[in-house]
Amino acid sequence: MGYYPASLTGLIENFAKLPGVGFKTAERLAMHILKMPYNEASYFSESIIEVKKKIRFCAECFCLSDNEICAICANPLRNNSTLCIVEQPADMIVIEKSGAFKGLYHILGGALSPMDGIMPNDIKIKEIIARIDKNKIVEVIIATNTNAEGESTADYIATILKSKKIKISRIASGIPVGGELKYIDQVTIKKALDARYVID
Amino acid sequence: MGYYPASLTGLIENFAKLPGVGFKTAERLAMHILKMPYNEASYFSESIIEVKKKIRFCAECFCLSDNEICAICANPLRNNSTLCIVEQPADMIVIEKSGAFKGLYHILGGALSPMDGIMPNDIKIKEIIARIDKNKIVEVIIATNTNAEGESTADYIATILKSKKIKISRIASGIPVGGELKYIDQVTIKKALDARYVID
Repeated sequence: MGYYPASLTGLIENFAKLPGVGFKTAERLAMHILKMPYNEASYFSESIIEVKKKIRFCAECFCLSDNEICAICANPLRNNSTLCIVEQPADMIVIEKSGAFKGLYHILGGALSPMDGIMPNDIKIKEIIARIDKNKIVEVIIATNTNAEGESTADYIATILKSKKIKISRIASGIPVGGELKYIDQVTIKKALDARYVID
Repeated sequence: MGYYPASLTGLIENFAKLPGVGFKTAERLAMHILKMPYNEASYFSESIIEVKKKIRFCAECFCLSDNEICAICANPLRNNSTLCIVEQPADMIVIEKSGAFKGLYHILGGALSPMDGIMPNDIKIKEIIARIDKNKIVEVIIATNTNAEGESTADYIATILKSKKIKISRIASGIPVGGELKYIDQVTIKKALDARYVID
């Protein structure tokens, strides 16, 4: 290190702390900052602090938000009778990007995992019931991951929602579009066969 | 884009402007900032501004520095009778890392390139003469790159320093250590043969 002025060393160290950024890359990124116009670097610097200060969980759906209520929950054009339950904010983002869902989300903040000490009260499950009781929810789509934790979380939620008179669905498993069957695992193949549909 | 809160979108865009950082990586880095402790993110943010505010060129050698005079020029333990001339601050860094030079540096800020309009007055050449006249310089080592621009810059500097009664040397060309001859270009092979030394 000591080869750079102290301020530059500090910036290189900060870049090197980021995931997937080694020392050489950190040097290159710091040099890039050095060459940037001052305004651009200042905007970069401020945006780091802004994210830390502003981002919180939406009080309704628990996704990432700049405000008390997120842009989706606050949007009157969204279908507020359908709730899509996901584990993490990133899961919500991929569903949003697909453009296939126009209802509201509910982010659990994780999946049940008794082995890791994550029990029903550690994720936002009772908040689903509160939302159903408060709003006219017609359908709950459970879109937790299809691994063991996600499946058992889906089962648990389906069970506790059974008493509510609403449709409860689970996102479908099957062959990913563009996938080749020879590379797909047997459990997925079995699920895809079980869920086969009639072509008419 | 619109899938993230505005502050997060801003940070992702800033990361995506860095060289070699695509949108997916920018998303990952921004999420990492989100999970960082506030103090760490704040230090990162400040270090960007600090670099922009503090870094300037050393008044003596024109390397990057936090102060008027850089740490090397200000170090009384450096041998101030030897001057190593390089094109860029990054060249100085690699020589420093090698630990093989204990004198002072002189950063030209580029190489002569009439095709690109870079003439002797556009880089710090006359400042070399000023330093030689002011200090007791015994040797000047010209360590510009070994490409066409670097070589002609070295020739030019050697010519204008001829009248000074000092030793003028050029960093050696040859086979890189650990290199395999079959992968080395012919000009380098020729240079390495010309510069062969007797083993005794």
